[in-house]
Amino acid sequence: MGIENFTPLKRASGGLPSTTANGRGGRATMPRGRQIHKTFNNIKITILCGFVTILVLRGTIGIGNLTSSEEEAINQNLIEETNRILAEIRSDNDPTDPDEPPEAEINSNVTYTLGPKLSNWDEERKVWLSQNLEFPNFVNGRPRILLLTGSPPNPCDNPIGDHYLLKAIKNKIDYCRIHGIEIVYNMAHLDKELAGYWAKLPMIRRLMLSHPEVEWIWWMDSDAMFTDMVFEIPLSKYDKRNLVIHGYPDLLFEQKSWIALNTGSFLFRNCKWSLDLLDAWAPMGPKGPIREEAGKILTANLKGRPAFEADDQSALIYLLLSQKDQWMDKVYIENQYYLHGYWAGLVDRYEEMIEKHHPGLGDERWPFVTHFVGCKPCGSYGDYPVEQCLRSMERAFNFADNQVLKLYGFGHRGLLSPKIKRIRNETVTPLEYVDQFDIRHSVHGNSRSGS
Amino acid sequence: MGIENFTPLKRASGGLPSTTANGRGGRATMPRGRQIHKTFNNIKITILCGFVTILVLRGTIGIGNLTSSEEEAINQNLIEETNRILAEIRSDNDPTDPDEPPEAEINSNVTYTLGPKLSNWDEERKVWLSQNLEFPNFVNGRPRILLLTGSPPNPCDNPIGDHYLLKAIKNKIDYCRIHGIEIVYNMAHLDKELAGYWAKLPMIRRLMLSHPEVEWIWWMDSDAMFTDMVFEIPLSKYDKRNLVIHGYPDLLFEQKSWIALNTGSFLFRNCKWSLDLLDAWAPMGPKGPIREEAGKILTANLKGRPAFEADDQSALIYLLLSQKDQWMDKVYIENQYYLHGYWAGLVDRYEEMIEKHHPGLGDERWPFVTHFVGCKPCGSYGDYPVEQCLRSMERAFNFADNQVLKLYGFGHRGLLSPKIKRIRNETVTPLEYVDQFDIRHSVHGNSRSGS
Repeated sequence: MGIENFTPLKRASGGLPSTTANGRGGRATMPRGRQIHKTFNNIKITILCGFVTILVLRGTIGIGNLTSSEEEAINQNLIEETNRILAEIRSDNDPTDPDEPPEAEINSNVTYTLGPKLSNWDEERKVWLSQNLEFPNFVNGRPRILLLTGSPPNPCDNPIGDHYLLKAIKNKIDYCRIHGIEIVYNMAHLDKELAGYWAKLPMIRRLMLSHPEVEWIWWMDSDAMFTDMVFEIPLSKYDKRNLVIHGYPDLLFEQKSWIALNTGSFLFRNCKWSLDLLDAWAPMGPKGPIREEAGKILTANLKGRPAFEADDQSALIYLLLSQKDQWMDKVYIENQYYLHGYWAGLVDRYEEMIEKHHPGLGDERWPFVTHFVGCKPCGSYGDYPVEQCLRSMERAFNFADNQVLKLYGFGHRGLLSPKIKRIRNETVTPLEYVDQFDIRHSVHGNSRSGS
Repeated sequence: MGIENFTPLKRASGGLPSTTANGRGGRATMPRGRQIHKTFNNIKITILCGFVTILVLRGTIGIGNLTSSEEEAINQNLIEETNRILAEIRSDNDPTDPDEPPEAEINSNVTYTLGPKLSNWDEERKVWLSQNLEFPNFVNGRPRILLLTGSPPNPCDNPIGDHYLLKAIKNKIDYCRIHGIEIVYNMAHLDKELAGYWAKLPMIRRLMLSHPEVEWIWWMDSDAMFTDMVFEIPLSKYDKRNLVIHGYPDLLFEQKSWIALNTGSFLFRNCKWSLDLLDAWAPMGPKGPIREEAGKILTANLKGRPAFEADDQSALIYLLLSQKDQWMDKVYIENQYYLHGYWAGLVDRYEEMIEKHHPGLGDERWPFVTHFVGCKPCGSYGDYPVEQCLRSMERAFNFADNQVLKLYGFGHRGLLSPKIKRIRNETVTPLEYVDQFDIRHSVHGNSRSGS
């Protein structure tokens, strides 16, 4: 696929082992049974390669040029080998670590909690802020935001998933750099019980308590991309709210739909109310029987929900419906702009948007966030055709990237192309374009300081 | 490999196409020749799968449990299919784009330049800064730094490479968040001639000119990781310098060694001198005959250099040797700490470092940066055994991640484990630990503002 490696070609001096055709060398002694197993694996791989080679040769004689297939077969061998090595490496737990606990028994009579109750969090945080003026929660009149996102610690089932995780984080890095937002990329499960989509809950709590200087924690899924690089969340609209989430009130309260809200992109204010809501939200999460049973309750109560274990989104919807009076006064259900924008209705309209509109709108004219719900590039099977998803993600990425590259005088050759072209000639007065094209200069006039 | 997908399980309402076993559906009409080609591809894939299935069945009867091999075979099919789809998508250039230029003829009598000469850059930048006080080049007494890194736009030849690119950028996000450094992750080739490891040169120039508020541009390779999360570059040491690079003066001036300096991690001040050096550096870079011929010159003149095309590192060494008087007064060759730390001598000593030392030293006791020179996880073949590289990268990542997780009360179970465990109990007074463990509080006492 024509990859050019950025890493300079440097060789170490001295007699270091070099890569053989199998990529091995200098392996430490291993148990004999394992050696035998490895030998059999190698024999199997050899036979497989033999068949592939026969196929390739037959194809070369009969059908046409199959060089790419041959290369892919070799590549597949490499991939299989690499993954096997990585799995072995990661299964080598530290033998001196005695702390791997046995699977805890979940006592379903005890409600699961994320941590001890912190009744005085608001007061204590206020005192801390007054004592730490060098870590204010407002910077240049704007509340400090931390964007939390992440992905599991292991490679994706489908390797293309890691490539899109990389592109998605680059996309987030760009938005957050322009808007002065800090990022935490989580690749660890803080709580074994709350793994998967539930993992965000303990991490949100942990970040609130560890970053008192942060006013808003913004969770964003790894499969969501910023597609409006100018738009900013109108936080002053939420002065009296503690949770901002995209959704539709009628879908929630009248239809009780399981997709009334979207937990792919939402903001929590750093305050006791949020800690309490997280605690109320978490109990459906612990994996195993609790999550299974909770899933049945959710399917029974939420319109359109298929049968599967409890997910965080359904659980939040159910919680806000069943404890409406307790929580809803502090929840803002936002749909004036695409805090979450479902991709299927958006990605085919990018050209129309470019023609008719401009960044900064954040809504259906120029969506703030395009969220690839159901594509699951990291897994083996998504809900949509692979080609449709990959094509759409490429388009969204490039649509966004064009807005970033504009400052530098470049743009993609097309929304499907990784190649870029100049959109402005080089100049001897580059600073003119800085004033004109740096988004930060336009977002808040000159009210933004250099932070 | 037990991947848990973070993305909530959301299905769209309505009749959207779902994934078939082949992952296809809803394809638009395509040219007939292409349809035939695709049909043949499908036949080939079916035959291959048939052979694999036969092999698996024979193995199941004869040798033992091959479930994992069967899964891997299916996974390989998925990978092949996905890559093929992606390649097709990306080859669909925008048909309305007339601007794809023909390959420019390089006139080797004309020295290649990165752009027009900017003789007054220092003065113009100074004026701009005085007129844009909200974008200062110093924040809280410290010069503003922008970290530039990146990787090619296409998926890695070896998919595990994308996973490590992801981990490496997470690592950089962590360091830069703690130390208030902005990141630009480049995935585009600004100049077709300067692709590969040369791509950093036009990007550095472009960033200087587009970000006059940035005082230092710090290039870091994608295969380099921060392993000292506390250490900060002592920039005041370089008040009179414009280029800071790791290396050894005797290796450079006496031995003329091709590894005397390392361009995997270096800093350029944003000034005319740097623009001029970039211009002097670039001419060996244009791919094709120029780069090939330049490679021969470099191999002939630099000790230990193998024969291959010109790389940026050798070219810089050659430039600084041959134009020593013009440049060296403004170059700082740093080796008091590991601005670049060659991995092979470091990764096996992490346990010893943990036992005897502490973060903040940046040198051989606790290396600032561990750089996986030669591992090339993104490519098909590195210079070292695959297992050794992957193991070492895991260790470096976790060694660094432990320093970040410490604030949150967690640490990895072992340097090879993606799993984490608590290192502190939950508490009702979390703010005590913020004061004690937040690196930002300790780095500069309380002189750092919240930026």
